[in-house]
Amino acid sequence: MGKVVFNMTMSLDGFVAGENDAPDNPLGDGGQPLFNWYNSGDTEYKMPGGEWKFKVSAASAKQLDHGIKSAGVLITGRKTFDIAGAWGGQHPVDLPVIVLTHRIPLDWANKPDSPFTFVTDGIESAVHQAKAIAGEKNIDVGTASTLQQALKAGLVDEITIDLVPVILGKGVRLFEHYGDEAPQLEQIGVIEEVKA
Amino acid sequence: MGKVVFNMTMSLDGFVAGENDAPDNPLGDGGQPLFNWYNSGDTEYKMPGGEWKFKVSAASAKQLDHGIKSAGVLITGRKTFDIAGAWGGQHPVDLPVIVLTHRIPLDWANKPDSPFTFVTDGIESAVHQAKAIAGEKNIDVGTASTLQQALKAGLVDEITIDLVPVILGKGVRLFEHYGDEAPQLEQIGVIEEVKA
Repeated sequence: MGKVVFNMTMSLDGFVAGENDAPDNPLGDGGQPLFNWYNSGDTEYKMPGGEWKFKVSAASAKQLDHGIKSAGVLITGRKTFDIAGAWGGQHPVDLPVIVLTHRIPLDWANKPDSPFTFVTDGIESAVHQAKAIAGEKNIDVGTASTLQQALKAGLVDEITIDLVPVILGKGVRLFEHYGDEAPQLEQIGVIEEVKA
Repeated sequence: MGKVVFNMTMSLDGFVAGENDAPDNPLGDGGQPLFNWYNSGDTEYKMPGGEWKFKVSAASAKQLDHGIKSAGVLITGRKTFDIAGAWGGQHPVDLPVIVLTHRIPLDWANKPDSPFTFVTDGIESAVHQAKAIAGEKNIDVGTASTLQQALKAGLVDEITIDLVPVILGKGVRLFEHYGDEAPQLEQIGVIEEVKA
């Protein structure tokens, strides 16, 4: 059985995007330095699907590759789906995508070849449906809001944080809205990245 | 010339103490897990001064030892001074201590052998006076509020964060109140600690 996993780049002060993230400002105000590490190493890594390429350390390339190859499905929030403009109709990472939303965007849902599954009845349902798709592979709860909902529901097995030496000061915090009890974590490992 | 340095344990979500930190609750509500790593390793480390002992990894013991032996003076905030009850009159780490405060506590200041220097005219003055004491050694701006004031004044050379796999959710945040511009950091290194 696959695990429910999460992976995101976070600033030292806990933000995963700047303020005012929107389709024309996908990383939010001042959010770009979060991702400088995608172009800071000497190892080129091309995501399956081919559209996203990074230059990172060899250790990070291995980690990114492991993460993506062990995933069988992505769960994303509606806000990210909208900010990304539905990735033009095909997620750059070549995996099935479940979009957690309150209202189904009919233009996408009615397309005969839509690569997106829209789930309106909450994170448990989304993870349940994702398990059927992923089989033995992992379920990546890919956005801050879906992570928060999955943490609240006690569904998360592993979190990988790409912690970058950046202070944003404001924006979208990763660890909030997870319910009354702070999640209990156990450290699995640390990988040192090159200087960003 | 010594550097202006800072070292503190921080939760993954950016807190250095829980809420309601006070003399009878020095780590704040739920703050204890921040310091589980002080007792998670197989190497005993005794701080100079002898009162504080830790069991950490060999790498962390080396780092702690380096930090403390390269420091010539500590600058602490008045709140920490009060929460610690002036450490009973002698800081456990055997170094001169400068306390940044608005009002001088006369009971301490008037003691003929008071180990504390009280500075009321701001962080620049405290660092200036600290340099005279520290000589070639480092100046440790030891508390969240003194770090924030020193960052705002552009005085900090190196920050060491002991990042622990703990989510607190609320409490005292480390990276705030540093002014309008977020500090720009450059990553120097990462040390992997044992599982906490």
